[in-house]
Amino acid sequence: MKQDTIAAATTAKGMPDAARKYAPYPTVGLRDRSWPDKVIDRAPIWCSVDLRDGNQALIDPMGHERKARMFQLLLDMGFKEIEVGFPSASQTDFDFNRWCIEQGNVPDDVDLQVLVQCRPELITRTFEALEGAKTPIVHFYNSTSELQRRVVFEKDVGGIKRIATDAAKMIADMAAKAGGGYRFQYSPESFTGTELEVALEICNAVAEIIRPTPENKLIINLPSTVEMATPNTYADRIEWMCRNLDNRENLIVSLHPHNDRGTGIATTELGLMAGADRVEGTLFGNGERTGNVDIVTLALNMYTQGVDPKLDCSDINRMKDVYEYANQLTIPERHPYVGELVYTAFSGSHQDAINKGMKALKTANKELWEVPYLPIDPADVGRSYEAIIRINSQSGKGGIAYVLQADYGLNLPRNLQIEFSHAIQAITDAEGKEVPARRIYEQFLQAYVDQPGARLKYVEHRTYPDTEVKGRRLIEATILDNGQEVTITGTGTGPIDSFVDALSRHIGVEMSVLDYSEHSMQRGSNASAISYVEVEHPGGKLFGAGINTNISSASLEAVVSAANRIIGYDAG
Amino acid sequence: MKQDTIAAATTAKGMPDAARKYAPYPTVGLRDRSWPDKVIDRAPIWCSVDLRDGNQALIDPMGHERKARMFQLLLDMGFKEIEVGFPSASQTDFDFNRWCIEQGNVPDDVDLQVLVQCRPELITRTFEALEGAKTPIVHFYNSTSELQRRVVFEKDVGGIKRIATDAAKMIADMAAKAGGGYRFQYSPESFTGTELEVALEICNAVAEIIRPTPENKLIINLPSTVEMATPNTYADRIEWMCRNLDNRENLIVSLHPHNDRGTGIATTELGLMAGADRVEGTLFGNGERTGNVDIVTLALNMYTQGVDPKLDCSDINRMKDVYEYANQLTIPERHPYVGELVYTAFSGSHQDAINKGMKALKTANKELWEVPYLPIDPADVGRSYEAIIRINSQSGKGGIAYVLQADYGLNLPRNLQIEFSHAIQAITDAEGKEVPARRIYEQFLQAYVDQPGARLKYVEHRTYPDTEVKGRRLIEATILDNGQEVTITGTGTGPIDSFVDALSRHIGVEMSVLDYSEHSMQRGSNASAISYVEVEHPGGKLFGAGINTNISSASLEAVVSAANRIIGYDAG
Repeated sequence: MKQDTIAAATTAKGMPDAARKYAPYPTVGLRDRSWPDKVIDRAPIWCSVDLRDGNQALIDPMGHERKARMFQLLLDMGFKEIEVGFPSASQTDFDFNRWCIEQGNVPDDVDLQVLVQCRPELITRTFEALEGAKTPIVHFYNSTSELQRRVVFEKDVGGIKRIATDAAKMIADMAAKAGGGYRFQYSPESFTGTELEVALEICNAVAEIIRPTPENKLIINLPSTVEMATPNTYADRIEWMCRNLDNRENLIVSLHPHNDRGTGIATTELGLMAGADRVEGTLFGNGERTGNVDIVTLALNMYTQGVDPKLDCSDINRMKDVYEYANQLTIPERHPYVGELVYTAFSGSHQDAINKGMKALKTANKELWEVPYLPIDPADVGRSYEAIIRINSQSGKGGIAYVLQADYGLNLPRNLQIEFSHAIQAITDAEGKEVPARRIYEQFLQAYVDQPGARLKYVEHRTYPDTEVKGRRLIEATILDNGQEVTITGTGTGPIDSFVDALSRHIGVEMSVLDYSEHSMQRGSNASAISYVEVEHPGGKLFGAGINTNISSASLEAVVSAANRIIGYDAG
Repeated sequence: MKQDTIAAATTAKGMPDAARKYAPYPTVGLRDRSWPDKVIDRAPIWCSVDLRDGNQALIDPMGHERKARMFQLLLDMGFKEIEVGFPSASQTDFDFNRWCIEQGNVPDDVDLQVLVQCRPELITRTFEALEGAKTPIVHFYNSTSELQRRVVFEKDVGGIKRIATDAAKMIADMAAKAGGGYRFQYSPESFTGTELEVALEICNAVAEIIRPTPENKLIINLPSTVEMATPNTYADRIEWMCRNLDNRENLIVSLHPHNDRGTGIATTELGLMAGADRVEGTLFGNGERTGNVDIVTLALNMYTQGVDPKLDCSDINRMKDVYEYANQLTIPERHPYVGELVYTAFSGSHQDAINKGMKALKTANKELWEVPYLPIDPADVGRSYEAIIRINSQSGKGGIAYVLQADYGLNLPRNLQIEFSHAIQAITDAEGKEVPARRIYEQFLQAYVDQPGARLKYVEHRTYPDTEVKGRRLIEATILDNGQEVTITGTGTGPIDSFVDALSRHIGVEMSVLDYSEHSMQRGSNASAISYVEVEHPGGKLFGAGINTNISSASLEAVVSAANRIIGYDAG
């Protein structure tokens, strides 16, 4: 890349000519497609391929311990189909497969699945691995794409079809000899690079041999082995296949999307709308290259549309822990639903809206989740609101108010939110960093409540009726002024009013109370109430606050706090 | 989550009832939609929001240094529109904005964009920030969704529209007073939660005030502020807006997708097919919560379909470095196009196919990129093939052959690949780890070439014609047998044949040569050729190999290597 940024006429600078190096993906031309009018209204059959496709893409593949922990999680989440390995290709997979059958405590309604290439010696070994399994799924595949036929296998369509049908025959025979109970899955691998007519011909030929029934359906798995086009094209292809496959009623059409273009989730969703019944994927999208499709995101996408995903994602932190332990990969901060930062809002307007949304939800007392910027209730997946808002130079009063409320039980009046947010913003602008909730709270206490080093300090007070004017009260209060005890007196309609009168005269600044509020505190030792007082003075208006077990004392402390600020107290 | 995995009748165990807690997203019902028949055949106008939307979502927002480095990268990549901040909301943003205008060396064809809420004091401050900029884009927004109108703003549609139109008036006036040269962008924020008719009404009202022309178009930005539905629904909404907006010819319709459902890329692609002209996003998808849409993936998705993306991504490693420095976030291993693992293949069949694809590409000598499992030539983005293949327990001979070829220049015969792969697989199965290329190479040398501790060792030889049988040659060779020098003799058609004869008689095992190949080596000191010999013996067949500057000696060493292995040499 050079600094001169004027784009070349036909190609981005620095890169080969796209039009010459890459061919656009062919479209299907399915003008009467029906999938764009569909919605996903039920969960598909889920099949986890974490232990196979996911595992084989790891820098350090899982050993037994890591596999067993992942397997238990998958069972706990409610997966009914789990591809446990490629037992004919690796001794580790073979051994784990045996362990699952012999010691894995697999529930009766869960089917183990194993992958095998269409080669006789591997098929034989696969049946050895499956001995004693209840209704295992034998998943056989061969690559069918035009490119692979040409450069890898050097065979025509007939030759490639024969690889699949020969394997189907052998597998059907071996399963029959073993006494039945087997299920079957065929994948025309590299389906996205295969002409639709060719994929159809091979799948139909395989089905003709397997002879599936509505009771024991053949799974036809149509992988997006490499994601090569926009997701609508995959959906067109799936709808075309669903329409054209022989005896569709005897088939389960399955998707196995990868994520090379970053659209694996969308590809799956549109593929389901296009008629597929089943999805193979992994937790959080581990898998070859850019990964398999992420089943957790798919499931929670359904969930937030009111559809039961039939997978338990209620403890997403445990799922993350097992994922990171078993795969030795970390989940990025922005991963949907589980990333560290996805239940946070940094922007002030977002924070404000979330704050109001949460309040409205509480008031409405409805089950329906409606909070701006939070498409899911974090609690549904075992996350909490506490981490939602952090304060940085881009946040506004809403965020500050939220953390003080959520973490410390302080309900700042709106104008105080604005006033205090300027102090916090000055810190974040100066330091260029997030300010944690604790620091915001401490900053608030220092500026408004404790005021270390301030001139004035409330000590005690008593009030009594004004014997001269009916309805008025007198106050006699003790304060410290620069450490010296002073008694001040005043009159007013009540204690606050009288105290403002007394203090105004003492400091020589005319003050009046504009707004006053007080609430009990949920946290804090030796403190039962906080009082906020907005005071007008000749130079403007500002707030003071006080905390005390006595509610009258709290409000007088708030007046003293305001007075200190008027006469120049600055906590910073 | 409990171990009992039988799913409840209506809801996944452990989670609230989806149907009661979440409402499905409304569909548009655009039955005559045209976007599914479209393909993306040209790049949109790109606008980077890394310095604004991306920045405000960081735990520690960027300071000047980090911003400046990101800004330079964006210029170098060829962005023509860059949103540099929200200057009225933060002093840091204001200062950086001034720096860009005064010292940023912004090319004439690049427009700076700034965000501002529809509030008078912020608009005034924004114009201060823009003084002296050439053709800046003033991007104003207010939230229009049904939910936010209800719970955040407590205003009806008229009130919300007035916020937008009042701001539009003020902005148009201030721009006119400043002498023109300004461009304008309006976003009905939370567009995905806004009824289409409402969004349309507000956008049309704003346009009526701004009075855009074909020469100075108004950008109407329709954000997927929160991704709330499958991407086809967003596309329907975009197509509906494009059809219904007044004076479409005076507007640039812009997308600003987020990624809450993990479908931001797809949403953008379908949105472009639906008629949008422009995309706002960030490099590698940084941004609020789950991120903004990832412009790099979008651009390279276009590129691999033969479309010039008009963004230079030729040095993706630098882009990654700047991203990680500026955002202080790391890019995950499986990120499309830039993840550490995305140009690797661990599966044996994938490795084999890539290997063959690369060879076919070389032979074909065409520009068109066609390699199985690699949708892009890694070299186009500054990555290399070297990291493509790593060897673990799931890889087969193809991968091993590839790394020995790519990293060490060894072209193992096919049967030797199979033979040697068993040795490597035994290691990976036992250790459960990836075996690095160097270790594979060293393992090969030890087992086949150096054979430390082996009984036999080649020393030297000479050959001469057999005076008794025409066409045959005699050999006299010196070998070490358990360290003792021995001279052996034999006859044959050539040196190898004669040597096999001599050695067979010496060790008392009948050997014959099945296959022989030799090639010069690209690497390795003091070595110019490697010879591979496949030898048949009564117990089967196996390979030997030898490396020598003399090609005859190399092949005799290979025979000795095979003989050692026949009589039980085991490097392991």
